[in-house]
Amino acid sequence: MDELTPRVKLWLEKDGQLVFSEYRARLLRLIKETGSLAEAAQAMSLSYRRAWGKLREIETNLGEPLVHSARGGGGGGRSGLTARGERMLMEFEALAEKTRQAAGAERDSTQDERERR
Amino acid sequence: MDELTPRVKLWLEKDGQLVFSEYRARLLRLIKETGSLAEAAQAMSLSYRRAWGKLREIETNLGEPLVHSARGGGGGGRSGLTARGERMLMEFEALAEKTRQAAGAERDSTQDERERR
Repeated sequence: MDELTPRVKLWLEKDGQLVFSEYRARLLRLIKETGSLAEAAQAMSLSYRRAWGKLREIETNLGEPLVHSARGGGGGGRSGLTARGERMLMEFEALAEKTRQAAGAERDSTQDERERR
Repeated sequence: MDELTPRVKLWLEKDGQLVFSEYRARLLRLIKETGSLAEAAQAMSLSYRRAWGKLREIETNLGEPLVHSARGGGGGGRSGLTARGERMLMEFEALAEKTRQAAGAERDSTQDERERR
């Protein structure tokens, strides 16, 4: 297939419904790395409200909390992944990498942005 | 990831543009199997004109003919894949299967239908 570039998208369904995706994994990763939902939202060019709603939607669909928050003092609230959130993120990222390798596809940082929201 | 079902979509890009996908592969496979663009279109619930346009679009993007046609007599025109079309279809289907296996995903016959057209 010569000069053609394989691209692949991975997502998870539960009872036929989309519950987790590369876009959603990116939100969790950013929360994990920044320790802040506000910063994660900003990095994804989402409003805080939108990021919060997306996170709530993921948790509702999975039936488990993935992120814990603690209201902070002057510095604002800090957030982090629960053990379930950590596991979800790690397993999904590993599966996504394995899938990309099988397809001969590269990681594409813009792919997430293209997802319909 | 327990009761979650991995799903995967594979496509090919050329210069950042989508040029081939599971949906497009299905059109080629149906042309190959039925020997008729009209029957392939019908099987995908597409108008003949739409299927023809899609095929033309794929060939233009790839810069090569994938399907040959011969105007028939009373039975209507017959179509089949060119050598390039055969190779494209085989290679794509093999890569899609390999990718699905890596993800632990199953073949989903409805997936193609959901693609935005």
